Amino acid sequence: MPSEFDLITRFFARPTSLANLGIGDDCALLTPGAGMQMAISCDMLVSGTHFFADTDPQQLGHKSLAVNLSDLAAMGAKPVAFTLALSLPSSDEKWLQSFSEGLFALADKHHCELIGGDTTRGPLNICITVFGEVPVNDAMQRNHAKAGDDIWVSGTLGDARAALAFLKGEASLDPNMVKPALTRLQMPQPRVELGMAIRKLAHAAIDLSDGLIGDLSHILNRSQVGATLNIDALPYGQILQNQTRDFQLQCILAGGDDYELCFTAPSSSRNHILDVARQTETAVTLIGAIEKTPGLRLVNAKGEAQAFSGKSFDHFANK
Amino acid sequence: MPSEFDLITRFFARPTSLANLGIGDDCALLTPGAGMQMAISCDMLVSGTHFFADTDPQQLGHKSLAVNLSDLAAMGAKPVAFTLALSLPSSDEKWLQSFSEGLFALADKHHCELIGGDTTRGPLNICITVFGEVPVNDAMQRNHAKAGDDIWVSGTLGDARAALAFLKGEASLDPNMVKPALTRLQMPQPRVELGMAIRKLAHAAIDLSDGLIGDLSHILNRSQVGATLNIDALPYGQILQNQTRDFQLQCILAGGDDYELCFTAPSSSRNHILDVARQTETAVTLIGAIEKTPGLRLVNAKGEAQAFSGKSFDHFANK
Repeated sequence: MPSEFDLITRFFARPTSLANLGIGDDCALLTPGAGMQMAISCDMLVSGTHFFADTDPQQLGHKSLAVNLSDLAAMGAKPVAFTLALSLPSSDEKWLQSFSEGLFALADKHHCELIGGDTTRGPLNICITVFGEVPVNDAMQRNHAKAGDDIWVSGTLGDARAALAFLKGEASLDPNMVKPALTRLQMPQPRVELGMAIRKLAHAAIDLSDGLIGDLSHILNRSQVGATLNIDALPYGQILQNQTRDFQLQCILAGGDDYELCFTAPSSSRNHILDVARQTETAVTLIGAIEKTPGLRLVNAKGEAQAFSGKSFDHFANK
Repeated sequence: MPSEFDLITRFFARPTSLANLGIGDDCALLTPGAGMQMAISCDMLVSGTHFFADTDPQQLGHKSLAVNLSDLAAMGAKPVAFTLALSLPSSDEKWLQSFSEGLFALADKHHCELIGGDTTRGPLNICITVFGEVPVNDAMQRNHAKAGDDIWVSGTLGDARAALAFLKGEASLDPNMVKPALTRLQMPQPRVELGMAIRKLAHAAIDLSDGLIGDLSHILNRSQVGATLNIDALPYGQILQNQTRDFQLQCILAGGDDYELCFTAPSSSRNHILDVARQTETAVTLIGAIEKTPGLRLVNAKGEAQAFSGKSFDHFANK
């Protein structure tokens, strides 16, 4: 069986250009540019909890990095580098080849270098820590939302939740929607360019990993504000089009794994935001407003209060 | 069962002073000091591979951070912050309380702040990424050893390996040596102060996690040099004193988990190194010399060649 060092050299060691020192020493060395802060995020993906054991390793390589890049996007940070810690039941070379291809395809797209990590034997577990740069004072923070702000989301919501429901046999999808839905679940596209483009315009931002209601609530709690969402404005795509309104709302409001951005910005920035969204080729939709009164209220297009009893995802509470 | 957010708040969220933004946002924000590089290292500890499932959680909290701080020490970097990703089979509050106590006791000792991370459900797995600062150009790198350099190690070697052999029933220890040996295995003390003190004096350094021969070989390979070690000079302590010479050498040369530093430095720095070692209250021992001729040679005090057939630890190759 190949050694730990052979595995790293064969599948993961590549020359670095941005980092001062990459894989192969006790530490990597990184120097942020002048006037820049390092934004750092860490996500752990566990077989059986975050993905099915038979998930295509190429898609898993993509997704493992994508969820981390999405955190950088939510701060408005530019990806620079990442570390990868990998626990594997065996050194399956075919799996590693495929996993590393998916990982590096996305890393290369965002010029994000692998600078270090660890490989070990154990139940399948992927832990990535990602490093980005953001100019001092420009990071979008969860505690910066202000009463009067517009609330925006990027892209469409709920597709990944619909795909998960399909995989679990809890919902059926139009046959020609299965593949696009699975792609949304397994190959999320982090909104890195949008995040960087709006960081001077937006006050607060978060990426939607646990569902709109749960994630927006983090912004509300940390900013000590409330919000009203117009549920008729919530953007969804073809995948959810022929579903019941109940299932649509469950997926849109409480579905996880969207990896879209939800952000708040003063209404004076509305046109500017639509401009940068066009420039980064990312759809954005105005879905509500931040208010002084605490709590999250749902209304329809006529302004009538709407009830919703769904829950966001939590690894410990809801299982 | 408490939620993921409750767990983080209760056991891990503490105010940060060095970091610009700590736990609770999509990313943490960190700004290195002027003229400083960030040194970054990442280690994953898996139940059953790196530790026994019934390991005291307080010791495990200590060790999880210690092995990462040891990597910073090997670069000569000052600890600043770390992220913690934790996969847990259940939210056992007593375990978490004890784990976090061990973790933070060591973190506080080195003024190293927890700035972010992830908790999830799954087989027990602890992944820490640590961040340190080192002045640009001062980091000790594995590829900087030069022919003529002295080879030094800190502390004593082999105690952790003796403890592991005892736990596995492969060796017996003097009854009054059992506790000190287990402490060496489970509560390693990273040589952070020594690392910072020698960074301007030493050329290359590595921390001893996989055994002296294996780890020194990384320096030799990366620096394209060879070495001769005097096996009679290798420092060991009371724990190994009454053991056979074969077992002593197996533990000293190929035992893992020592977390001492092995470093090379020009012989002109000899007195200076002994001075800073005294100042940081860390024993150091001169054990050999770097040479042009590739390969690692073992000799006794008389200079006679010695054979050794032990192996270093590798998670994939030796199992």
